[in-house]
Amino acid sequence: MTPEEFRTAGHALVDWIADHRARLADLPVRAVTSPGEVAAALPILPPDGVEPVEALLADLERVVVPGITQVQHPRNFGWFPANASLASALGDLASTGLGAIGLSWQSAPALTEVEEVVCDWMRRLTGLSPAWKGVIQDTSSTAVLVALLAARERAGGHCALGGGLQACPAPLTVYTTAHAHSSVVKAVLLAGFGRENLRLVDVDPVSYAMDPAALRRAVEADVTAGRRPAAVVATLGTTGTTAVDPLPAVVAVAREHGMWVHVDAALAGSALLLPEFRWLADGLEPAAGPDGAGGADSLAWNPHKWMGTALDCALLYLRDPEQLVRVMSTDPSYLRSAADGRVTQYRDWGIPLGRRFRALKLWFHLRLDGVEAIRARLRRDLDNARWLAEQVTADPEWRVLAPVPLQTVCARHQPPGLPADDGDALDRHTLAWVEAVNASGRAFLTPAQLDGRWMARVSVGAEPTEREDVAALWELMRTAARDAG
Amino acid sequence: MTPEEFRTAGHALVDWIADHRARLADLPVRAVTSPGEVAAALPILPPDGVEPVEALLADLERVVVPGITQVQHPRNFGWFPANASLASALGDLASTGLGAIGLSWQSAPALTEVEEVVCDWMRRLTGLSPAWKGVIQDTSSTAVLVALLAARERAGGHCALGGGLQACPAPLTVYTTAHAHSSVVKAVLLAGFGRENLRLVDVDPVSYAMDPAALRRAVEADVTAGRRPAAVVATLGTTGTTAVDPLPAVVAVAREHGMWVHVDAALAGSALLLPEFRWLADGLEPAAGPDGAGGADSLAWNPHKWMGTALDCALLYLRDPEQLVRVMSTDPSYLRSAADGRVTQYRDWGIPLGRRFRALKLWFHLRLDGVEAIRARLRRDLDNARWLAEQVTADPEWRVLAPVPLQTVCARHQPPGLPADDGDALDRHTLAWVEAVNASGRAFLTPAQLDGRWMARVSVGAEPTEREDVAALWELMRTAARDAG
Repeated sequence: MTPEEFRTAGHALVDWIADHRARLADLPVRAVTSPGEVAAALPILPPDGVEPVEALLADLERVVVPGITQVQHPRNFGWFPANASLASALGDLASTGLGAIGLSWQSAPALTEVEEVVCDWMRRLTGLSPAWKGVIQDTSSTAVLVALLAARERAGGHCALGGGLQACPAPLTVYTTAHAHSSVVKAVLLAGFGRENLRLVDVDPVSYAMDPAALRRAVEADVTAGRRPAAVVATLGTTGTTAVDPLPAVVAVAREHGMWVHVDAALAGSALLLPEFRWLADGLEPAAGPDGAGGADSLAWNPHKWMGTALDCALLYLRDPEQLVRVMSTDPSYLRSAADGRVTQYRDWGIPLGRRFRALKLWFHLRLDGVEAIRARLRRDLDNARWLAEQVTADPEWRVLAPVPLQTVCARHQPPGLPADDGDALDRHTLAWVEAVNASGRAFLTPAQLDGRWMARVSVGAEPTEREDVAALWELMRTAARDAG
Repeated sequence: MTPEEFRTAGHALVDWIADHRARLADLPVRAVTSPGEVAAALPILPPDGVEPVEALLADLERVVVPGITQVQHPRNFGWFPANASLASALGDLASTGLGAIGLSWQSAPALTEVEEVVCDWMRRLTGLSPAWKGVIQDTSSTAVLVALLAARERAGGHCALGGGLQACPAPLTVYTTAHAHSSVVKAVLLAGFGRENLRLVDVDPVSYAMDPAALRRAVEADVTAGRRPAAVVATLGTTGTTAVDPLPAVVAVAREHGMWVHVDAALAGSALLLPEFRWLADGLEPAAGPDGAGGADSLAWNPHKWMGTALDCALLYLRDPEQLVRVMSTDPSYLRSAADGRVTQYRDWGIPLGRRFRALKLWFHLRLDGVEAIRARLRRDLDNARWLAEQVTADPEWRVLAPVPLQTVCARHQPPGLPADDGDALDRHTLAWVEAVNASGRAFLTPAQLDGRWMARVSVGAEPTEREDVAALWELMRTAARDAG
């Protein structure tokens, strides 16, 4: 495709995207296709010749649009917000259009330095101290793996450079809660710690946040048994209920035992943009003064969630990036240049060698949308979630099941005719009315389990979601629950 | 940013990209900025208000363009080709514009199924048997890590589900050559095997390909010593010289010991699109017949290199994806749906949970550019590399240092006045003339070490590179070498 062909086709695609975003409210939120339906609609090989962009746009309409759950829809309340702001989409296009590749600083100095600058912008905007250095990873799943690999090596005396984890005498243990994201367990297994060395620490039964006394007991029991506590993963805003682990107390236990503290704020990091939510990060920072004791080692959060920088864009901040570099660095001859030693080599801060120019989408997002407008949107969503929680609380048939510190409301409907102790029947009812809402196409929310029973998670914060959309959801919920009851 | 604002700004950005690609030949190839220069050109915080897209485009011109090495330039011969075809750029924009997110099949059935279909298209186009199932990863670095994690668990009796790698009695060993990509060593360390359990098997001194007899000796020595050979990573097209490890012989040794065979064809995979290059993959396939013995376990290659699907797009093919699923799967309640069990959950085939709709860029690339046109371009590049090798060979002051099976020519100039045994002086000369070429801005190539001495790697295959560009490079090389000599 020549530049001139790209110009024409690009205009057509931009128009298609603008039209698609403008009509989103009229589409069903949940994907309407059945398993295998999309695959069956496509040929087993691409056509021999060259196709015009119009053929692709027609296939987007025919096959792809019905085949995705429209998370950009104003009535999407599923999972966590996964906003792909159009401003950031432009930044991502600029990245692909430039076609730069990050292999070393030399291969694209601007790719490295704009990333450094934009990560520092985000550090300042979220109130972190200059102790933190940032890098963009694809997701928080990868970020927690990277952090746990660094933790493993620090606790294990850099066994990777010798006989490997097998040569490390004391079993290394990791601590989190059952409410941590599934990627934490996955990272523990992938890093080789083993499931038996993962401790799911008890949570407070009301807040669902980590119980630091239980953490202390678990750590001390392991130490007594000859094991070596390597890391704790604390969550700010758990996936189930947006619980906030008590970081100051968690950090205090971890520091006594030299453990790595990784903070997973995948969702809640966006709230740190709001000064009134900086309390979320209490305990994160090292103490003031020359020794700088305390604090966490790493923090990850996803601008690609609530804030709305298009997937994939996860920020990972570290107090001491050398801990990563020591574990990740490579120095093949074909990547050396005269600038080495004076510049950041981001390849040593993560897994891939070749890196996209992801900083551009954050850069475009912040500058084209403006930080104050992003903050206003986050505050709107927090207000809407509080409003919904009030409506649910005020209805005697409904309950809010967990605190609502952020923008997610966990709700359950108890039908008047159902015995209060019949949990299985209540589960069937919950899943039935949630499915009725989702099948309507008029809104989408995600059922999840809490204390072994199903509930509805209403996660407010799609970019176009206004109060009227939340009100319409609440009406749909009540109607569906009544009809299912 | 509203859809209408996106329409206007998107047209402006598309035009900017078209103009940028059209003028590439007039830009210096290598980035011209000094360390810190880009960062110094940016403010310490984004402006308070909203900026127009023109401000961003002006900054792209002022700060970013001079700060990247133009790997899309017709005279880029550095590293390996890193083509970002404009057709694939459109597919990537479609992905971001749609704003779908892959968490489960349900979150975006089309994201999963188009990926399955397009991976299968690529399987057919590269002549692989239906034994292979594909998935898109970000890079081959991640793909080899994923493969080695699966290999570790298979060889270690799925220790991750128990006491972890530390509980696995026999040390697990991994085999590759010193010519394998740096990401292989990195993956071995990250997976926890330990550097002492990595064997860099000898290579043939002429072809730089793995010596299978040396592999056999290394494996047997480890078995005798009580260690457990877990995996071998064979390379088709090494980064230094595009050497091709002898897969049939490597597989034969590996199969005797139940080892995982991962094939890293990051560069050379593109050549499999050409029927006349299918020999590269000899040994990859299982034997015909019901037992299907032999063959490799996994194969990774990067359409984002020579083929030109924009970064990041690495294909990972597996004979038995269940080996990955068993190691990677998670099943949190909030991701369950009625379709589970009947559909592919790609989150269990890799590290991240949230996945971009990367298949669209391959889909657009294949359909808008056409497979035959892509093949014609690859053949053009192979011809150009052969032509350059002939010129180098014909000049008595120059040598081609390694076979040229693909599109990379390894060359060295021996100045008439330099003693043939003064290797250090020759190194200084090589680095001097290569730097002179690169500093001119008129072409770019990468010095690298071979047998401990510097050489120039000329990697042909930027999308717009024609014979005249290769001829101009050769002229530049000779002039620079003469002036430096």
